[in-house]
Amino acid sequence: MGFNLLPKEYEFFDMFDKLAVECIAASKQFSANVDSESFNAESLQKIKDIEHAADSITFEIFEKLNKTFITPLDREDIFSLAHEFDSIIDLILKISNMMKIYNIDKVNKTFIDVVKLIDDSIFSLSEAVKGLRNLKDSKDIMKHCVEVNHLESLGDQLRNEAIAELFTYHDAIYIMKWKDIFQTSEKILDQCDDVAKIIGSLIVKQA
Amino acid sequence: MGFNLLPKEYEFFDMFDKLAVECIAASKQFSANVDSESFNAESLQKIKDIEHAADSITFEIFEKLNKTFITPLDREDIFSLAHEFDSIIDLILKISNMMKIYNIDKVNKTFIDVVKLIDDSIFSLSEAVKGLRNLKDSKDIMKHCVEVNHLESLGDQLRNEAIAELFTYHDAIYIMKWKDIFQTSEKILDQCDDVAKIIGSLIVKQA
Amino acid sequence: MGFNLLPKEYEFFDMFDKLAVECIAASKQFSANVDSESFNAESLQKIKDIEHAADSITFEIFEKLNKTFITPLDREDIFSLAHEFDSIIDLILKISNMMKIYNIDKVNKTFIDVVKLIDDSIFSLSEAVKGLRNLKDSKDIMKHCVEVNHLESLGDQLRNEAIAELFTYHDAIYIMKWKDIFQTSEKILDQCDDVAKIIGSLIVKQA
Repeated sequence: MGFNLLPKEYEFFDMFDKLAVECIAASKQFSANVDSESFNAESLQKIKDIEHAADSITFEIFEKLNKTFITPLDREDIFSLAHEFDSIIDLILKISNMMKIYNIDKVNKTFIDVVKLIDDSIFSLSEAVKGLRNLKDSKDIMKHCVEVNHLESLGDQLRNEAIAELFTYHDAIYIMKWKDIFQTSEKILDQCDDVAKIIGSLIVKQA
Repeated sequence: MGFNLLPKEYEFFDMFDKLAVECIAASKQFSANVDSESFNAESLQKIKDIEHAADSITFEIFEKLNKTFITPLDREDIFSLAHEFDSIIDLILKISNMMKIYNIDKVNKTFIDVVKLIDDSIFSLSEAVKGLRNLKDSKDIMKHCVEVNHLESLGDQLRNEAIAELFTYHDAIYIMKWKDIFQTSEKILDQCDDVAKIIGSLIVKQA
Repeated sequence: MGFNLLPKEYEFFDMFDKLAVECIAASKQFSANVDSESFNAESLQKIKDIEHAADSITFEIFEKLNKTFITPLDREDIFSLAHEFDSIIDLILKISNMMKIYNIDKVNKTFIDVVKLIDDSIFSLSEAVKGLRNLKDSKDIMKHCVEVNHLESLGDQLRNEAIAELFTYHDAIYIMKWKDIFQTSEKILDQCDDVAKIIGSLIVKQA
């Protein structure tokens, strides 16, 4: 008979890592769809599957929260971190849906750069999440959180330029579609930043 | 002389029930306006009156919170539950306003189905609110919260289909109006889901 | 050698006052840009500088929070108040950016009235913030918070009228631009109201 020296509560961190893995998968799949300009039912389904897997992990976190007496972080923080993290993937599904609904067949060039920023932001966030296991060692976590914030600013600049350019065309429906898509991409970078801010506030709390 | 055995603090639950009653009234009135395609000052006033009544109840909850020492739920949770619940009615007023501002005289067919989902979601939420009195018996409350979440997903599907169809027309102003209306209907279902999530988190806390 | 009888923690209130000063500056600068109908890189830079200064103050608040053991308000409340207050200035920058991106050269008349409401709301908020030093004396703070809420309602009315009028034109791109601008102005008044609500909830907590 063996011992499990690792307290069970630490499984929360593993579950957050799993959520981060799904988040990276969603971002990679979205990038691939953008690269191949394929926004059909099939390419959308791949993102739906990832979103579904992430929902299951989030639900597991809530279930575990229900059954765990001593938690490694405040219950409410675990709840909101899981919820907000999951929302990133919801937004990636939302933007993917939008590309299909708007029947996009040719991708705006600046958008490809924005998708790269999203990918980078999610990578930094997944690194920050790994740091939750040791909040006292906050320097490295903070570095990643600051990077997420920086990428959000870069995204703002790119989007502003892209939208200003859109309005030089005179096709209202084209403007409407791409304005929506760029604004949703902004929400993804903002949501990443929100998660980074939650992690930042956890560091404040533990200080 | 009689006794009042029920602790005064439990009046919070009665006040939440009253808020739920106003929420149902707002939804029913909105459905009636949609059915009769009447989005004039008069039909709008009926919803404004309900929103006003709900505001008064929310204010009473805040006032009571100010005066009550021991509360049946955490003060902050009562505050945010009342605030977020009230926001559902604010959004129903917002969408009603929008129909008037946009001078709608003929209702998009899919929108009628979305209005039905809103009505169902608010009914489930009002049932969940009744359960606040006994959070330990969480099974039934959770059933209603899950239903609210399910209706929100259905609403997403309907809205996606409706907006994809809108873009097959070539009237930019028509698209703009109905896209806004469908997106606001999405916010109502999302807001219902947010309230359901708060109730869910109360169950987690009490577990 | 002198004594500093004022506890260091009270510096948080000074920092919130500084944030309020930047917020007023941003609003004044935006009003000036609107009055002179100048939405170029130069006029935008002035608002960017203010937003940058506000970010530094917010960052200082977070840093101080990290180093302070006993805080005059709950740590999380200081965190969220600073963050939400800072967001008002972010939104003023956002709307300023928008006027530049949309290449606005002539200001919609109703918009001038909305800008006045924003200015008044931020003034009331800065008065409410001064009251944080003495939350027990809540009457005066509440008066300012109620005023912020009142101005937000007035803004809603103005915006509704303005957007209804927009749709009487038949230029989809013009409608799109000004609808966005009016909706962003709504977000500013809403954000002011959100900060007022946080202050309101602090009063509830301290009661």
